[in-house]
Amino acid sequence: MSRVDRTLLTPLLLLERSAHALPDHVAIIHGARRYTYREMAAEAERLARALRASGIAPGDRVACLLPNIPELLLAHFGVPLARAVLVAINTRLAPGEIEYILNHSGAKLLVVDTGLMASIAPVRGRLETVEEIVCVDDAGIEPAFEATGYAEFLQRAELIQDEPLPWRIDDEDRIISINYTSGTTGQPKGVMYSHRGAYLNALAQIVHSRHSVNSVYLWTLPMFHCNGWCTTWGVTGIGGTHVCLRAVDAGEIWAQIREHSVTHLNAAATVLIMLINHPSAAPVAERLIVTTGGAPPSPTLISELEALNMPVIHLYGLTETYGPATICEWQHEWNGQGTTARARLLARQGVAHITANPISVVDEQMNEVPKDGQTLGEVVMRGSTVMAGYYRDPEATAAAFRGGWFHSGDLGVWHSDGYIELRDRKKDIIISGGENISTIEVEQAIASHPAVLECAVVSTPHETWGERPKAFVICKPGQAATAAEIIAHVRGRIAHYKAPDAVEFVAELPKTATGKIQKFVLREREWAGYEARVYGGTVGNG
Amino acid sequence: MSRVDRTLLTPLLLLERSAHALPDHVAIIHGARRYTYREMAAEAERLARALRASGIAPGDRVACLLPNIPELLLAHFGVPLARAVLVAINTRLAPGEIEYILNHSGAKLLVVDTGLMASIAPVRGRLETVEEIVCVDDAGIEPAFEATGYAEFLQRAELIQDEPLPWRIDDEDRIISINYTSGTTGQPKGVMYSHRGAYLNALAQIVHSRHSVNSVYLWTLPMFHCNGWCTTWGVTGIGGTHVCLRAVDAGEIWAQIREHSVTHLNAAATVLIMLINHPSAAPVAERLIVTTGGAPPSPTLISELEALNMPVIHLYGLTETYGPATICEWQHEWNGQGTTARARLLARQGVAHITANPISVVDEQMNEVPKDGQTLGEVVMRGSTVMAGYYRDPEATAAAFRGGWFHSGDLGVWHSDGYIELRDRKKDIIISGGENISTIEVEQAIASHPAVLECAVVSTPHETWGERPKAFVICKPGQAATAAEIIAHVRGRIAHYKAPDAVEFVAELPKTATGKIQKFVLREREWAGYEARVYGGTVGNG
Repeated sequence: MSRVDRTLLTPLLLLERSAHALPDHVAIIHGARRYTYREMAAEAERLARALRASGIAPGDRVACLLPNIPELLLAHFGVPLARAVLVAINTRLAPGEIEYILNHSGAKLLVVDTGLMASIAPVRGRLETVEEIVCVDDAGIEPAFEATGYAEFLQRAELIQDEPLPWRIDDEDRIISINYTSGTTGQPKGVMYSHRGAYLNALAQIVHSRHSVNSVYLWTLPMFHCNGWCTTWGVTGIGGTHVCLRAVDAGEIWAQIREHSVTHLNAAATVLIMLINHPSAAPVAERLIVTTGGAPPSPTLISELEALNMPVIHLYGLTETYGPATICEWQHEWNGQGTTARARLLARQGVAHITANPISVVDEQMNEVPKDGQTLGEVVMRGSTVMAGYYRDPEATAAAFRGGWFHSGDLGVWHSDGYIELRDRKKDIIISGGENISTIEVEQAIASHPAVLECAVVSTPHETWGERPKAFVICKPGQAATAAEIIAHVRGRIAHYKAPDAVEFVAELPKTATGKIQKFVLREREWAGYEARVYGGTVGNG
Repeated sequence: MSRVDRTLLTPLLLLERSAHALPDHVAIIHGARRYTYREMAAEAERLARALRASGIAPGDRVACLLPNIPELLLAHFGVPLARAVLVAINTRLAPGEIEYILNHSGAKLLVVDTGLMASIAPVRGRLETVEEIVCVDDAGIEPAFEATGYAEFLQRAELIQDEPLPWRIDDEDRIISINYTSGTTGQPKGVMYSHRGAYLNALAQIVHSRHSVNSVYLWTLPMFHCNGWCTTWGVTGIGGTHVCLRAVDAGEIWAQIREHSVTHLNAAATVLIMLINHPSAAPVAERLIVTTGGAPPSPTLISELEALNMPVIHLYGLTETYGPATICEWQHEWNGQGTTARARLLARQGVAHITANPISVVDEQMNEVPKDGQTLGEVVMRGSTVMAGYYRDPEATAAAFRGGWFHSGDLGVWHSDGYIELRDRKKDIIISGGENISTIEVEQAIASHPAVLECAVVSTPHETWGERPKAFVICKPGQAATAAEIIAHVRGRIAHYKAPDAVEFVAELPKTATGKIQKFVLREREWAGYEARVYGGTVGNG
């Protein structure tokens, strides 16, 4: 009776759409290079054929160690078009970490930027599955060792030019990519994304970052991070223009913003702090939507970006949720409030994004915590845009999905308006005299001091209270503050017991490749010589 | 190895999301009535339970004959929540047509507005499957015959208050609604929508009409028309506010726009013409996005709406494509052009919308026509947002999908930039001396005359040329023009052979319930006494 036309969901549909609908629209800008959507689709096809001609079979893993250059963006379509699985590796990892990911994923082919071959050279002899290394010369850097040139590799496409290469897939649950977590403890885990999940999250990014055919999207967020929060696929689907950027440099970002009239960028808070404090910082002529996540932007940061005509969209998520899973939906009725109140509202992580339903905050027994803005619980997720599991790690997968929900490891409260606000990573929370202290709350109080550029708060051991907060602070260039001033400033804003006992002024903070502050590094230093701190199992009232 | 969390796609997820994420946000406004999202979800559950308690089983059809009131919006969630199928019937149909739809769909229960019971009374004895009629008193109108009151019906929910009512479905290809075509020839056909297709098209409406949590959407488009182009589900999903409207009246629309600071409305061109020519017409304070489809808006209409701070988004589609299937994506580089050129660009039907890939324009042999803006072909569609088929009509389904594509019956050209522009319905095109004349093109030329309010062009028989165009014109109040002036005006704009041979000034034009002009009525009058005109099979160069 019914004739269901089941076009299976895949990001490949998104490039197919723009190549068909907007063939002459500029898809990619990289320095002097330009690709229209017609050319982008043709290049993706060429890459897919070259992979097939190089022995890549459906399901094989293809690794890329590349900066935000067109070749990595094209791999997001060419690799799945060849029915292979993309493993985009964090370019800032150490050789040993890269070796682990290549071997664990069983990658058969590695595409590497000549500027990153030094990270491969020391471990080349220990790669167990990589059969060929292809190098991309994007910046005139000599290869560190002999490898197949990218142009030579692409030419192989001609060998199978007449073989069919269907853009439609036969299984939307097929794995499209594996993204390795940053692995702050233990080895990194390979998070599997499906074609269906990637498609749906790409649509959600279009909706929530308000992309259109007129988007000019600047690639400051690494594409290797959750496939650029699925924006690789999303901006392509809506037919916007990608502006590639080889290295994250504040001066270069400002130059690109002005040269190409950039309308959108995604970036972690640390990149944004760098941006607003750069000498080139000045209000942009056309509104530039900044989508941020990874860490809550401080009220101060939000206000300063708005003054630059750069309104902030705040998202939150994890590698396991294809990047963003919540959005702090801005409600017009908040417009009447003062700058600080508005910024505080926007610093919250928000509500489930359109395809991420549902998201919940639960206690240890998986009961929803009350929506009182007070009771701490763990943020848990379910749905189409939660990972398909950890690659080759059924135990970790089962642990992450205990009770049928994905456990984020993030602690937060639920406000009465339905918005979630993170208080801490489960492992970062400070338990002082039985009271939970949110390091994020303390950090936001410190960041509102005019001399502070960036800060981090971690627990230190304390005989009486068990733990007490300590702050690490970077001051703005040419500015200074004393520890007593910082502590007094915090006590003027939040409960006295939450103020740090100590403030250490530093020149830099340890960070992950994606710009997140590695609090565990600071914490381990403070706790050296003490018994290992026991994490978890302490969710209670904050 | 992989743990795929398959949350099946259904519009129910969209209400679930907003009820969970934005519980206190206003979901529905209707006169003095208000529903928050929490209340909307509770009401949908109550309706679903009342249906179950009334003997409605999964797969049963529930018909509604209701204006744009909250009960019809709630039925878009309550009926599928009960796993039943919604049949929203065009309220302007004649009793015999309604009887046909009720019997053909096999509806078991009918919900009717007391103001529409007069359409049921004459055929009540001939309803073959309807077991119960429930009446909604929205406007203080006495029921025309004895029927179950809506409040009494809803109370049955309490009988099964403790039965589980899962919001998650087990089959996303399940039919969610059947929408009957207007049936300009023959009996109306029942177009089946699936949960999956409805979900995806709802997301596309959010993307292309640029909805957000701050949308205040005024219901001028009937919800019975393609389920309101899936906006019933879309605006709910993004958490906007629905403003219901019992009757389409230009004065009332202007009043609602001002009272509720409406940000979005969807409407056919005829409603928009009524709107801009009303005495209350004046620029709105906040930008109001007008999404139109059904017939191409004339350049004149587009310009006049823009002057009212009401930018136009132009979509195109059919009941068989869940409503909109293409969008005329506005490209910033067009901004520099003059008003007329911009309006002409926007009057095109555009490109496949984000979930409707692909759309093609083909000749009789199913080959794509050249993208030359000249060669006429038929617009055909495929993909997730093409109907699941005609209910109980495998022959019509097979005919509509010949060659694996859905055939729209619309003739258009393909421009070099990838945008489609309709020239005519296959059955409306005029073939004069072997040349195709697009009635739409002639109508747009006539509409640009300052005295013209609305017009329609159809073929008339001609001894030498076979067919010639004739125009039916309504003048603006207090204005007039002669036939010779209209013809001269057209000849000054398009090829002389396309100008009408005759112009008839009329007080009104025959229209369908959705505001489309019924050209076949005009044409049949002109061709009375002649042999039946042969349609189709004449796609050639225009």
